[in-house]
Amino acid sequence: MNRLGLYCSRCSAKLPFRYVEMKCDCGGTLLVDYDLECIGRTFKKEVLTTRCPSMWRYKDLLPVSNPDCIITLGEGWTPLVRLTTWEKKLPIGQLWLKREEQNPTGSFKSRGFSVAVSLLKESDRTKAAVPSNGNAASALAAYAGYAGIEASVFIPLDCPPLIVEECPLYGAATYLVDGFIHDAAAIIEAGKHEQGWINVGTLKEPGRVEGKKTMGLELAEQLGWKFPDVIIYPTGGGSGIIGMWKAYHELKALHWIDGPMPRFVCVQEEGCQPIVDGLAALNQAAMTPAVHAIASPTGMRVPNPPDLALILSIIVESGGTALALSKSQIAEATQTLGSQGISASPEGSAAWAGLLALCDNGWLLPSDSVVLFNTSHAMKYAKLTSSPSLPIIRTYEDYRSLNK
Amino acid sequence: MNRLGLYCSRCSAKLPFRYVEMKCDCGGTLLVDYDLECIGRTFKKEVLTTRCPSMWRYKDLLPVSNPDCIITLGEGWTPLVRLTTWEKKLPIGQLWLKREEQNPTGSFKSRGFSVAVSLLKESDRTKAAVPSNGNAASALAAYAGYAGIEASVFIPLDCPPLIVEECPLYGAATYLVDGFIHDAAAIIEAGKHEQGWINVGTLKEPGRVEGKKTMGLELAEQLGWKFPDVIIYPTGGGSGIIGMWKAYHELKALHWIDGPMPRFVCVQEEGCQPIVDGLAALNQAAMTPAVHAIASPTGMRVPNPPDLALILSIIVESGGTALALSKSQIAEATQTLGSQGISASPEGSAAWAGLLALCDNGWLLPSDSVVLFNTSHAMKYAKLTSSPSLPIIRTYEDYRSLNK
Repeated sequence: MNRLGLYCSRCSAKLPFRYVEMKCDCGGTLLVDYDLECIGRTFKKEVLTTRCPSMWRYKDLLPVSNPDCIITLGEGWTPLVRLTTWEKKLPIGQLWLKREEQNPTGSFKSRGFSVAVSLLKESDRTKAAVPSNGNAASALAAYAGYAGIEASVFIPLDCPPLIVEECPLYGAATYLVDGFIHDAAAIIEAGKHEQGWINVGTLKEPGRVEGKKTMGLELAEQLGWKFPDVIIYPTGGGSGIIGMWKAYHELKALHWIDGPMPRFVCVQEEGCQPIVDGLAALNQAAMTPAVHAIASPTGMRVPNPPDLALILSIIVESGGTALALSKSQIAEATQTLGSQGISASPEGSAAWAGLLALCDNGWLLPSDSVVLFNTSHAMKYAKLTSSPSLPIIRTYEDYRSLNK
Repeated sequence: MNRLGLYCSRCSAKLPFRYVEMKCDCGGTLLVDYDLECIGRTFKKEVLTTRCPSMWRYKDLLPVSNPDCIITLGEGWTPLVRLTTWEKKLPIGQLWLKREEQNPTGSFKSRGFSVAVSLLKESDRTKAAVPSNGNAASALAAYAGYAGIEASVFIPLDCPPLIVEECPLYGAATYLVDGFIHDAAAIIEAGKHEQGWINVGTLKEPGRVEGKKTMGLELAEQLGWKFPDVIIYPTGGGSGIIGMWKAYHELKALHWIDGPMPRFVCVQEEGCQPIVDGLAALNQAAMTPAVHAIASPTGMRVPNPPDLALILSIIVESGGTALALSKSQIAEATQTLGSQGISASPEGSAAWAGLLALCDNGWLLPSDSVVLFNTSHAMKYAKLTSSPSLPIIRTYEDYRSLNK
């Protein structure tokens, strides 16, 4: 058993492991505690050369005790691609893109749900529910389907139709909610006792943060056991930032890395930017009032992150920042990444737009190595955008007439 | 330089390496010839533990000489997932699924175009064109975009609209063709001299087969340097089957594997089944007349594969078979795989339907280990199917009323 128990990210209280209540009495979030000294005795970097090419290569640092309960569809160990052409054009040192769209469900959400559904299996739970802007719902649906667990998913009405359609394909009971993600969450909270649902929403259980943690572990391994100077990450509920921050501290405790923490940059879309606003409030800067209705229905649209204080403290601890990008900056970034062969979601595009903004305002240094995350495929967002009008031809003569 | 030259798959003639003409005077297809004895002196299995988690881990067996010309977006080294639940239900030994949808462009076509575009770069070509039912076009578009090569793609009018839309996103000049894939190919052949296009269609250049070869190399490595007994593979132009057959022979020559060749099973959709019909003709069995118009516009719809004789000889050499599945068998398979958490394209679904048919008719043996290929994401085919109608709710009370 690798996991020791839980610890509170706010007051440092230690508690025995329990599956679903993740709020400490102090209001902080409970995270999984490991005996890193003990783990470090057998888990060495060299062991990884013989491990599987998925995030379960780090099983020693994941909270599932019974290997028979691991529910895996081949998630993680995604490519880290160097964008050399752009690296030369921008005033930074190195530029990398972590291609999370290559996960089994076409998004980074596969990671968290592989662990969460494994924990459900291990604890003999049979019903799970999640509020989601789409990709978390489709990931729960897929992993629960594979594990034989009943999934119910609740998604705001305006979310990308293709992602919504994946959920019934994977066998989930799928409901569209006339409201935001917190309205969907309220439905689950209201019904969870009567329906027997385990709520696997962000920070409601320990698996999702632990799964997202593997993004940080992989980054470090792929860069030769170094972290980059800066991570630009599209942020909604924040489990990715929390997970990668936790990965940094665990690798440090294992003495596998040293050096400072990467500066975490959270990007959001203008109109729903609680992290940007929260950081501005901490810094006593002027806040942009949040106008939720105009932000697009992406994974970044989370008006009330479950532990905003923890996200802000990570940004501050790391020397990072947060910024909000406009719809047009995001749309332009989709085109730029597309022409580089990258199928970028609006979230991944926001990371790119954030990179350009931080180059423009001088926040990034010429020596910085920067990692961007593309969290999902562009195509999952089709139908939200209009289709291009393309020429129809029959012969090469038709082609020539068109291209005269 | 690993590549020695080219050899003819039909008459065994040896030729110097040349980039684009792949037909031998005898009518056979030219394939890349390697000095395997020389390669084997430095390329050992153990080397792979230090190699990158992409198909370029096998760069010693790929035809790109200048490492600076390798165009990679993180393709290959895709998960091989064991389907234990179904394995127990079916009269076979082991059941595996190779998840090719997790490639950078959401399909197995990434592999061939990573090599083909690298070769274009290496030989200073600046313009490429491809006829395609969709996924090859989007892969050329992505890799060419990344490499700064001008791509023109020609796609039958009825192909999946989302795949078509990816091509202009990646910056390719995109044309819809009122006809089949061979009509699209005819346009390229007619215009290639005037336009300066390199035709990167199936078997028109050496890169695509070599890229697809890595599927076979990976299978062997992932199974502990063993091939499975049976590979069920959705087949259109056939470069995947040719590539995996070539992988088997090269690994055998390197003494990395032994044992018989896997039995290759080609699956197609009823209505466009030249491989099934060709095999029936070889066996002097009754042929189903091909009615091209009714087969769905998938990667399997290739009425005239460029080297049908080679595909048939591989099936015969391996002791394999070919079969055609109906639209309804394929649609049902999509549901079955979906409920297992697998986003299966019609092509991957055909492989599943083929598995069930070969279990039913007793062709598969109780000891057989079987690998299926899911070549692309289900979602790329959306809009061809109708959207499900889903309930809209605001509160938990609404949920209860619906589920009374």
